[in-house]
Amino acid sequence: MTTALTIKALDKVPMIGPGDDLATIIVDALADNDLTVENGDVLVLAQKIVSKSEGRLLDLNTVLPSKRAEEIAHATDKDPRLVEAILAESKSVLRRVPGVLITEHLRGWIMANAGIDASNVASSDGEDNVLLLPLDPDKSCEDLCEQLYVRTRKEVGVLINDSFGRPWRLGTTGVALGAAGLPSLWDRRGEKDMFGRELQVSQQAVADELAAAASLVQGQGAEGRPIALIRGLEFGANENAPSRPAADLIRDISEDLFR
Amino acid sequence: MTTALTIKALDKVPMIGPGDDLATIIVDALADNDLTVENGDVLVLAQKIVSKSEGRLLDLNTVLPSKRAEEIAHATDKDPRLVEAILAESKSVLRRVPGVLITEHLRGWIMANAGIDASNVASSDGEDNVLLLPLDPDKSCEDLCEQLYVRTRKEVGVLINDSFGRPWRLGTTGVALGAAGLPSLWDRRGEKDMFGRELQVSQQAVADELAAAASLVQGQGAEGRPIALIRGLEFGANENAPSRPAADLIRDISEDLFR
Repeated sequence: MTTALTIKALDKVPMIGPGDDLATIIVDALADNDLTVENGDVLVLAQKIVSKSEGRLLDLNTVLPSKRAEEIAHATDKDPRLVEAILAESKSVLRRVPGVLITEHLRGWIMANAGIDASNVASSDGEDNVLLLPLDPDKSCEDLCEQLYVRTRKEVGVLINDSFGRPWRLGTTGVALGAAGLPSLWDRRGEKDMFGRELQVSQQAVADELAAAASLVQGQGAEGRPIALIRGLEFGANENAPSRPAADLIRDISEDLFR
Repeated sequence: MTTALTIKALDKVPMIGPGDDLATIIVDALADNDLTVENGDVLVLAQKIVSKSEGRLLDLNTVLPSKRAEEIAHATDKDPRLVEAILAESKSVLRRVPGVLITEHLRGWIMANAGIDASNVASSDGEDNVLLLPLDPDKSCEDLCEQLYVRTRKEVGVLINDSFGRPWRLGTTGVALGAAGLPSLWDRRGEKDMFGRELQVSQQAVADELAAAASLVQGQGAEGRPIALIRGLEFGANENAPSRPAADLIRDISEDLFR
């Protein structure tokens, strides 16, 4: 039962480039911030640094837009090469209107531009470089959990977050693309409230709430602090909260009422 | 620039009933938890206690279902009286399938069952009582801000949160129904990233992220702790982050691509 949390963005995280070892960067950054991890801590990594470390840069000059990409680019006022890259990362296009292209990403996320981002990509990497999402964020989190355990002997959770828009609300919120070592979806169906009635809210998207909380301290742009440490998450022995990956948060298309 | 947050659920909050003065309850609960508020703190209140204090209980035995309510009740496997109550709180019905009724609430929220909840309503209040959302959550927050200022001489933010489902993701997350004294929507359009490119994420739903963060400590059901204190939110003088109500988070129907 979690009753208090602290959420802290790490200072002094260096710029991340392709091939950088994130476990080392995290351990070093914790030390530079005079922090040590404890069992049950959750490290939240901004998608951008995971993508960069995994070399997910794409030079748009290498992209040849298809006829379909040209057409969607025209309808959405976007660079046809960017649209081609978005389509290559997507299963299907949900909406396309001027300025907006919403697709289902290959990994199931419904989001704008398949998560492809041009901001905070160093122009020294090439003016036309964009950043794709990590190939398998849950796997990246699992690997980092293991590497962090080897180095710290602490069992920590790892979460990769990104900012998503919402269909009926303005502004973006942090969302979990990947997670390991924590109950991304906490299933409380069947539990009773304090008067013996069945709980109304019975599945809690814990990973998305953690992602949102971390987003408040990570900032972005010039002052971006891509690594946050969350402490205090606790699930009691009688709280059925096994670890589950962030992929479990994706609603199956068969249950989608709003596509 | 927020770099660290603490989020704490208050213990020993009493059961709330109609007419209870929430400002008094908050001040007393803070004292009982050996806490004092500071300028810039945000108090997050679960919707349920605000609704209860405002007497938003409805006895379904007083509700006479219309023919339309009967029909929707049949299609959704719901109590026709509950459906009638939902329709009375709604502008329009978006989706109705077995077990699911999603409407646009009178205040613009797209949500299940117009937010009407039967759990954690004391059966001593009547087995058939349900709880409606507060009439004007932004106004409730404004009033509480003022009352808390009078009693504590501190300028705190107040937020009312609830749990919403999402169309493409499983589980619920905390969402802001009302807010005062904080930038519910932080508009950063036009700002540049560290390489001089325009920020990709340019409007941040700060109130929803705070609502989600608080939800992690509030719990629900038997162990529910409806009041959370968030400390550490900071916006620098050069961060254009004026206070805005939670109503500013609602996307206008003219920009809705998924209705």
